[in-house]
This record gives sequence, C-alpha cells and structure tokens, in this order.
Amino acid sequence: MVVLSKPIAAVAVFISFVSAQSFQRLGSCPDLGCIIPPDQADFLAGQRFDIRLEVHAPVNGSEATGNPNPDENFSFTIERVGGHRGVLSGSKWFKVAEPKLEKWTFGWFEDYFARDAKTPSIVNVASKAYRKVYLDEAGEYKATLTYNGKTTTATWNVRNLEEVRKTRNVLFFIGDGMTTNMITAARLIGHKSKNGKYLSKMAMDTFPVLGHAMTHSIDSFITDSANSATALYTGHKSTVNALGVYVDSSPNVFDDPKVESIAELFYRIYRGHVGIVSTAAVADATPAALTSHTRDRGQAPYCVDSFLHGTPNYTWVDWNGPDVLFGGGAEQFYPPSLGGKTYLGKDYYQEFSNAGYGVYLNKTSLLNAPNTDRALGIFSVSHMSKWLDRNVYKNNLKAQSNHPSGNKGDAEDQPGLKEMTLKAIDILHTRAKADPRHSSQGWFLMSEAASIDKMMHVLDYDRALGELLELDDTIKASIEKLKALGELSNTLIVVTADHGHGFDVMGSVDTKYLVEQPEDRKKRSAVGVYEQSGLSGYQNSGDLTYTDGSHFPSNWTPRYALFAGLATSPDRRENYKLHENGPRLPATNTPGRPSNDYYANDKDSIGGFVVNGTLPTDQAQGVHSLTDVPVFAMGPCQELFGGVQNNIDIFFNMANCLGLSRTAHGKGQDPIGN
Amino acid sequence: MVVLSKPIAAVAVFISFVSAQSFQRLGSCPDLGCIIPPDQADFLAGQRFDIRLEVHAPVNGSEATGNPNPDENFSFTIERVGGHRGVLSGSKWFKVAEPKLEKWTFGWFEDYFARDAKTPSIVNVASKAYRKVYLDEAGEYKATLTYNGKTTTATWNVRNLEEVRKTRNVLFFIGDGMTTNMITAARLIGHKSKNGKYLSKMAMDTFPVLGHAMTHSIDSFITDSANSATALYTGHKSTVNALGVYVDSSPNVFDDPKVESIAELFYRIYRGHVGIVSTAAVADATPAALTSHTRDRGQAPYCVDSFLHGTPNYTWVDWNGPDVLFGGGAEQFYPPSLGGKTYLGKDYYQEFSNAGYGVYLNKTSLLNAPNTDRALGIFSVSHMSKWLDRNVYKNNLKAQSNHPSGNKGDAEDQPGLKEMTLKAIDILHTRAKADPRHSSQGWFLMSEAASIDKMMHVLDYDRALGELLELDDTIKASIEKLKALGELSNTLIVVTADHGHGFDVMGSVDTKYLVEQPEDRKKRSAVGVYEQSGLSGYQNSGDLTYTDGSHFPSNWTPRYALFAGLATSPDRRENYKLHENGPRLPATNTPGRPSNDYYANDKDSIGGFVVNGTLPTDQAQGVHSLTDVPVFAMGPCQELFGGVQNNIDIFFNMANCLGLSRTAHGKGQDPIGN
Repeated sequence: MVVLSKPIAAVAVFISFVSAQSFQRLGSCPDLGCIIPPDQADFLAGQRFDIRLEVHAPVNGSEATGNPNPDENFSFTIERVGGHRGVLSGSKWFKVAEPKLEKWTFGWFEDYFARDAKTPSIVNVASKAYRKVYLDEAGEYKATLTYNGKTTTATWNVRNLEEVRKTRNVLFFIGDGMTTNMITAARLIGHKSKNGKYLSKMAMDTFPVLGHAMTHSIDSFITDSANSATALYTGHKSTVNALGVYVDSSPNVFDDPKVESIAELFYRIYRGHVGIVSTAAVADATPAALTSHTRDRGQAPYCVDSFLHGTPNYTWVDWNGPDVLFGGGAEQFYPPSLGGKTYLGKDYYQEFSNAGYGVYLNKTSLLNAPNTDRALGIFSVSHMSKWLDRNVYKNNLKAQSNHPSGNKGDAEDQPGLKEMTLKAIDILHTRAKADPRHSSQGWFLMSEAASIDKMMHVLDYDRALGELLELDDTIKASIEKLKALGELSNTLIVVTADHGHGFDVMGSVDTKYLVEQPEDRKKRSAVGVYEQSGLSGYQNSGDLTYTDGSHFPSNWTPRYALFAGLATSPDRRENYKLHENGPRLPATNTPGRPSNDYYANDKDSIGGFVVNGTLPTDQAQGVHSLTDVPVFAMGPCQELFGGVQNNIDIFFNMANCLGLSRTAHGKGQDPIGN
Repeated sequence: MVVLSKPIAAVAVFISFVSAQSFQRLGSCPDLGCIIPPDQADFLAGQRFDIRLEVHAPVNGSEATGNPNPDENFSFTIERVGGHRGVLSGSKWFKVAEPKLEKWTFGWFEDYFARDAKTPSIVNVASKAYRKVYLDEAGEYKATLTYNGKTTTATWNVRNLEEVRKTRNVLFFIGDGMTTNMITAARLIGHKSKNGKYLSKMAMDTFPVLGHAMTHSIDSFITDSANSATALYTGHKSTVNALGVYVDSSPNVFDDPKVESIAELFYRIYRGHVGIVSTAAVADATPAALTSHTRDRGQAPYCVDSFLHGTPNYTWVDWNGPDVLFGGGAEQFYPPSLGGKTYLGKDYYQEFSNAGYGVYLNKTSLLNAPNTDRALGIFSVSHMSKWLDRNVYKNNLKAQSNHPSGNKGDAEDQPGLKEMTLKAIDILHTRAKADPRHSSQGWFLMSEAASIDKMMHVLDYDRALGELLELDDTIKASIEKLKALGELSNTLIVVTADHGHGFDVMGSVDTKYLVEQPEDRKKRSAVGVYEQSGLSGYQNSGDLTYTDGSHFPSNWTPRYALFAGLATSPDRRENYKLHENGPRLPATNTPGRPSNDYYANDKDSIGGFVVNGTLPTDQAQGVHSLTDVPVFAMGPCQELFGGVQNNIDIFFNMANCLGLSRTAHGKGQDPIGN
C-alpha cells in the first residue's frame, strides 16, 4: 500500500486503502465517478448528512483509461422524482456556496498477487464535499454526477415515515457478536430442563416479536462492529472500520462524509436524554459510533472527545454530551502524565467534571451517585473484566494494573452490565422527568454486552456465554425496573447484535477422559455427538446459586463440558476445559519468528489436542461471520421489528417510533436545536 | 456393549444401549422406576399413545442397590388434577385389561472408560405396556409408579386447544439441517445486492411471521432427524434414532411406546388427504416419521411398508396410505431378485399398484400423471441427485447405477423438489376437492429438502446451498400455485428445520491465489476476512441465468469463493473450490488401517491445505449442532408460530390449526376412523 498524497499535519499517516474483491478501489464506487452516499441509500427526512463527490483517474492498472487527469469541471445535480423544483445543481438545491475543489492521489492493490509484488494501482482524484445538508421530502431522489462526458447516477430514497412520536423511551441492547446459536448454548448452560422442557426461559425468549437482521457492510459481506453500529444508529451502511461516516478515498480520516446518528437526531429535535453503557472501553466502536464521525475506529482519543463535544471542528450538528456514559477505557481519560492517551493531552475526567458530570471509578460510588446529575463512570483501563472473573474467579481481578485512576492498581470493584444499566435508567428517568420541556421527557439508552464478541474472538466460549447470560440477566432486571418506575409501556425495548461469529455446540466432551488419552487422535474420542451429547452438565451438577432470579450455571466446570467450536479459527489447542486463570490466549507468535506468524499457544489448554486453523496465519484471533442475527422487540412499535430485515431497518424503526422524521410541511414539532 | 436378553427371531440383534451423560441407563428415566411418556410430557387431547412402565434393578455398577430383582408387583395409577375420577389404576382409568408382565435384561456402559474396559453395568427389568390409550380432558394429570416401596411420578399436561378447524390445508416444509446462517449464505450467492441493499429476497424472507424452535431431544441436547421429526409430527420429544416412539429398554425395536402422528390424526379424525415428498430415500427418517413407529430409524423396509399399511402388527390406529409419496429410495421397492431390500421380500411397486397407486419412476411420467389418483413416485436408488448435478453438472448423473427400476441404469430424468411438490399439491387439491366428505376436503403435505443436511454432512457447502436455494424456489412456486388454485388463504404454510449444523461464512477466498501458494500456511493467506471479504462473486460475475423467476448464482465457480466452514468436522483438505465431479467425500479410511479411522481424502480438494478435525476419528462426516432453527409461517394461525418456542410447539400449533384436539365433551366433530 502506498500513500502518495501529502500527509496532513497532526493526523497519523493513514494508508489510503480502497479495494475490489479482496480489495476495491472505493467500495461504493464501481464507476470512475463517485457519489457518496451512493446509489440505493435510504435516508430519514431531515437527517443531516454530508455529500462527497469524487472523480477518479487511474494512472495505471486494469482500469486506466489513458487520461491520468480527473475532470475538475465535473458537475453534480439533484432532482426529486415527481417533484416541482426540477433538476438543480447541488449548490442551488441545498442553497449553499459551491464547495471548494480538492485533489489528492491514492494507491491500492488489485489483488493479493499485486500486494505480494508491491505493485499498486495509482489513482488521481478531484473532489468536492457538501456539508450538513438534508433532504426534506419523502420519496425518490436522483443524484447525477457528470464527468469526462460520462454520468454516474444515484437513486436516493427518503423513507415516508409518520412524524408522530410513539414512544417516550428507547432501550437498545446490543449483544456484540451475539448469534441465535450462542443464545441457544447460553440457555443450555444457564437454565434447567426436564425431559426436553425448559423450566425457566431466557429473558430474550419471552419477547413478543422476533426478527432477523442482515449485517453485511456496504462493500463487503462480512462486517465489523464500527460500520454495523453506524448502520444501526444512522440507517446508512458503510465500510469496515467506519464510525458515523461513509468512506471516501482522501487521506484525512476525519473528512469523510458524515451521517447524523440517532443520538444526535434525538438531541437536536427533542433535546432528548441519551445514555451510553458498555462493558468495553467506551472509545470502542459500538459506543463511539453514537457520536463519532471518522472512518478510522482506532481514533480513540477523538472518540472520547466526541462524547462530550460532538464534532465541533467540522460543519456539523450541535451536541452537548450524554446524561450517562459508563464503561471502560480509562486510558482515554487520565492524562499523559499518568500514561493516558487523550485528545490533545487533556485530562478527560477533569473535562467531564468541568461540564457538570459526577465522575465515578468503581461500583460502590456508582451505586451511590445522585440520579439528578449527569454521570461519567469509567471502571477500568481498556475493556472491563468479564462476568466470570468478576463473579466466580475473582482472583483473576488481581495483578491487572487496570485501575481507572491510572495509578496502576487493580480495578477490583467493577460494576457489571446490570448495575451500570439499572443506574443509567435511574438517572435518565429522573433527569428526563424533571426536564421542563415536555418533549424532552424521554430517553434513549444504548447498553452493550461487548465481550460476548471479545471472548469469542479469543475462543473463550465459557466467558463469552457468561457475558451473554449477564446480558440476559440485565434485560430481565431492566424490564422489572421499568415496571417499577411505571415506564415499561412507554419504552420500546430492542435487543439485537451487530454481527456474528461462526459458533455452535455439537455435543459434549468427557474432559477427564480427554486428558488421560496419550495422543491427539485418541483424545478426540472423548467427544460425544448426537445421543452421546447427553444432558447439560452445567445444570445437573454443582452447587453454585445466584440471587435475584439470575440464571447462570450451577457448575461452570462439569466433567462433561460443551463440545463447542467456531467455523474458522487460528491454530489452537483444545481440551474444552474452562480457562481458570483469565481470558484465553489461544495463539501466540514465537520468539525468533516473524511477529505476525501465529501458532497454538503452548501454555493454553494443556493436555488437549492441537488443531490447525483455516484463517491466515497472521490472525491471532477468530473473526466475524456472515449470519443474520436475531432481533427481539417489545413495547411501542414492537411489530415493526418482526420478520427478516436489514440492519438499517432497525434505525428507521427506532427513528419512526421516536418521531424523528421531519419533512418541510410535516406535522412534527420543529426541532429545538441545530 | 453386551446383550443379555434372548434375541427375538427375525429381528436383527439390537444392542440395548441406554445412557447417562455420554451414556444413560434410559434417557427419560433417572430413577429406577420409569414412566414413559415421562414427566413434563405434553399431549394433544384424544391423541393415541402407548404407555411403558419399567422397574429397573441394577445388578452391578454405580446404581446397584444390592437387590438384583425388580419388583414385579409394581403398581401404576393415574389421576387428573382437579378431576372427578380420583386416583385409579391404569387399567381402570383406560378401561382395559391389566397388561402382561414382561421381563428382560440389558447392559450399558457408564462412561467411555467402562466402554474401553468392556465392563458394562447390567440391569434386570420388569415391565408392562398399555397400548393405544388416550387422555380426553385438557389439564394436568399425575401418573404414579410405585415399586420397591418407592414412587416415581410424572406430570402430564394435556394442552387446552380449541376443537375448531381453522385451516383447510397445511403445507409443511422442512429444510433438513437448515439454519439461519445457511439461509444468509444462500441469499448471498443467489441474490444480487447493490450497496448493501438486496434487489430481490428469498421467499423465506417475505414470510410475515418469524420464530425460533429449540431442537434438543428428550435426553440429549444434540438431536438427529428421526427424533426431531417425531417431535415436529407428534408433539413428543424422544431419543436419537427414534421414529414415532419413546425409547424403552427392551431388545425389541418395534415394541417401544408409540405416539400418534399428525398424519395419523388427520386421517383418523377427518379422513384428511396426506402427501409426503422428500429428496431423500423415502424410508429416511424425516418422511418415515409420519407413519413409522420404531426406535431404530434403520428399519427401512418396515418404514416403507408403514407408508402403505401403517402399523397393523401392533394395537394401533388405522392407516390407508398417503395420496402422494414422492422421493428416492428405490431399493426398498424393487424386489430382492433385483437386489432390493424390501419388507418380507415383496415388490413394493406392485404392492402400491395393487392398492390403486399410479407408479412413476421419472419426471416425465410424473408430470403427466393424472391428478385424480393416488401416486407413488420413486426416482432413484437411495437419495435423489442434488440440484447442482441435476441442473448444472449433468454429467454427474451418469454412471450412477441408480435407476429406480433396479436395472442398474442411470436415473437421468429426476424431478426436483419443486416439480414433486407442485405435482403433489395438484393431486392433493384435486382429490381433496372431489372428496364427498366436507371435512376431508383438505390436505397435509410435508415437503423436505433433505440434502441441505446431507451435503453439510460431507462438507459440500456449494451443493448444500444449492439444495437450500431449490427449497426457496419451491416455496415461492408453491405460493404462486396455491394462489392460482384459490387456496392460498386456506393454507397454513410453515417452513422450518429439524436441527442445524455449525455452518457459517467468514469471508472470501482467492481460489486462484490459494492453489498457487507452495505450502499450507501460505495457502491460508488467500482468505479475505472483514473488509477483504468483498462482494458476492456468485452474483457479480458469470452468465448463468434461470427461468421462472428462480434465483441461483450467475456463477457457481467464481475466483473469489465463499470462505465457509463448520464448527467441527473430520480431518479434511480445503481449497474452497466447487467439487465438480459430484458430492464431496472429505474423509476416507486408509487401506491397511482400521476401517473406522478417517483421514483427509487425498483425492479431495487437490491443491488445498489440510486441516485436522475435532471430531472423533471414527466420524467420516460432520455432525449436527445445538442451535435453535428458524420458523417461517404464513396463513391461518400464522401468529402462533412467532417468537421463541420448542419444536413440539410446532406440532401443537399445526394440530390446533387443523382442529385435531378432541376432548370428551368438546365441540369437535367425532373422528371418522379408529
């Protein structure tokens, strides 16, 4: 990969990497003229967004035309099909000045052979961008780019939604990486059954409406959490790694065309109250996509700043911070003097405190926080500890040097997803009810069980299922709390995932028999499939019990463990026993060998048998999968979420329910903000 | 394993194999006194079933009490909770003679160590069986077995359903082994998309109601097709390998306690018309479970006889044969003189013909069959050829020696699932409409895409997805046909699966790059994950087209193929290319080595890299998985199928819709038959 444009000061050198099949020149742009948002995009009426136009002139490679100069005099028009304004230039349509012309150059590899040979295809670009525009009537629009005597057209569809608010609150749970297959396995280990009948159900099992959501990105059928969160929060699919933007080909990772998120819309229109809760570092993609706008999810310091300030350096909507922000990732908060990596080197505990937030660094203080004030709760360096370690293998919380103050101590008093979510509901409920504006008397809360995904990535099936059972426990407790607050019928509750992993369970394993067999092929005969899978050792043995109607295994280490696996993985060793010393590390690189050459970790799964993987050997972890993911809904508008849909439909259904669509002559109240 | 009972003449020696975790003494019986159907069983009011009572006296092993003699004077009582008859003996309750006492002995291994050491635990049994009884009031029943001064109780629940028929017809599609993950992959290769928006949908995607069904068996969390079909057709879960019975511990595979199937109920109550269609051998579990009653799914000759005659050798309900029976499995039809394996050595083409069936052995004659007469269509020896070979790689139909006449020729004119299903609908519709009895003017059709599962078992992902796309094409065409016949609003259509496999797609593979890399670890770098998965090569290249609005890949062999896999498998080699010479054979045994010791087939996936599996090395194929499976429903009663449910609920919902529940004082018309 080659960067040929001039790097912009103060931005890390970003390798412009746009691609075809393995790679594409620019994902949403098969032609040499690019309109972004591209053809087939759906919009919410009134939703703010940017437009990026690019004209590509390949210098070499399979697409070279012989003319390496992009047409700088390209033109761009918009019309609404069946509308009265006719065909107008972009500037006239949106009533803005003609954007400045921008130029750059990038390189890309046409396939793995070209990558190996280090022979990139070079492309010169001429471009313009419109900032913070919107479409204010429902229906079909036609956008046309004319360049070098050719045209590229994009059909844009503004969905026709009622402008009536149907729910006061939205509680949006995301099980990161969570599939139906995983829910089935969690039920098996967390709930008792008798002769095939479950004696208790998952909270998710009780939801009245079930749907499936497709998760693919705009230009690849496998997605990541960043762009899938963008789809869920904005109704616009994007490219892997992108937060709140479509991806362009410029070197600047912050100038990509933005789309307004549900949090930004809710604040702008209603001054609605927003809560963000995650067991990940809060700068991680799923929380960050609510306020961040960059094609590079790795811009963690910026992401944290965007929680507080939004995106003030670019023409964009106002943002004043969420009511609650809870999770991990303290290294983006304590200052560089303590080793932090913060935006512009500031102390972000101080920044939030200055803005009126109470700041809480452990569960005890969190539970005692007043419900009247905005709250920042950061409970660990990096991602928070896992349910299994916080609740069963508590010794694993020691010697982590992850205290959120930055003092290198251990974060031994972390809340779980349940405590964080219930407290967030209390604060949002109290503040929303006290809000003098009637329309603001509601809230949107996103609560993420982030480490289902993270533990699946490291093939730690037990911990991943523990995180999933914690999510289910959180859902159950949240429903009870909403009932107690008298808000259950005023709250749309949606539970879904951003994408999957190829996980399933195919039987049980006699872990005692396995370790006693002398060689690998014989160890595999410890596996019992079909009838020999038997019953759930996690529920028919052991004596662990749980309070508050919580459901988890009575035995986390039965002799007969789950025979689980993933449809692809790095090299690994398997003994199917729970990893008692903390999250698994399945593959490592070897001293003296290249650092990106992974083999099964010889300290992992002692006594097990080695399985070589199918992933590229530079992948240390498992990867995401294609499968549609489940959607569970209850409350106002629940019926919209049933059946098979695309992940962008989840945004449009939530926006519909909150009454966020705004047309020029519609009935919705005027937005309060800008 | 040891058989200590006297083998019964003419029945293959059956090894009584009942188990605990890897193995159980008897799956539904943790105590030493067994009531079958066991605790937590649900029933349809009026549904005929058998009862088996067993008293176990372990002679040795971990459960031995010191008394090796089971109490032959055990007693059995029944009461309805809140009812007026009080507690009565079984004979008094059901108004039958006291059953004869039966005695036998069986052995089982308590775990894999005992199996290796060949030290079985021996159990003496005293038993009685009640035949063809039923419960005729809704509500809770308590069944009590008293033996050796102890009691075992079972709570039986007769569901409280309306006795009103709400649908004329039921069209029940089973995608054998089909998961949501597979549907997602089939959509990816079969349908075009643009910038993340699919331009056409799967027929399944358009159904108004979506549910999930749990698939576990009664005594193991992984199931097979036999017992899961039993659950779907009877509302009673059973043990792996069982068709239409609960499993007992006796050596006889035909005396296990039976449960009445939806086909038998529909015929007995309404003289309803039944159709059975499958791409498998018709004696295979999923079709067979509609009429067969045996704990051994391998009893293929008996299964074929049961299609025609039901179960006349045992006290059971009447059965007169389906209107249509279409599929493969000719070896259970042509006589032994041609190499057939038929029930009592008879010619079953002749048997069916004598009973008035038209007999059809190829697509041409099937399509010309009259719609007025019952029809038997058998189109191949063993399972029918796969969609991919019947439609694209037609040379693979040659040299198969599978002609259904038994003449060792090739079956080159086989219908597909679509042709068979549409013809079945035509015949059922015509015959039902002509039926003088109003209540008989309806039909139940089961149509199975059997080879999704069979191709997943052999890791042939392309063929499996081809079978799934054929199922979807069949669903689409069936809806259109029902519309044309004016029967769409009279037909409940349900699509589901019996169980899953751990399949998913995690990216794409540059198959050209892969084969050119010299060694295994380097070949793996041909895999593109996340963004490098790119777009679907199956739709953005190639020029295959299809008629009748059918959706299949435009290119079955793109350079960038699916990077697919299973969560467990035998040893194999992967090059991710389509297997052009016919269904894949991923693992084989080696001459000179034990026959049940499987390694990657060195003739398969040439140029690929070897991956050792995680399954026991005596498994030549992939296995089933735990995951909940999707349920799609449209038509009368569709709303019953939404949300998360157990697979037995599918039976109860269909039975509810067809009005098959019958209580003593209920409003349903009296059953026509016995």
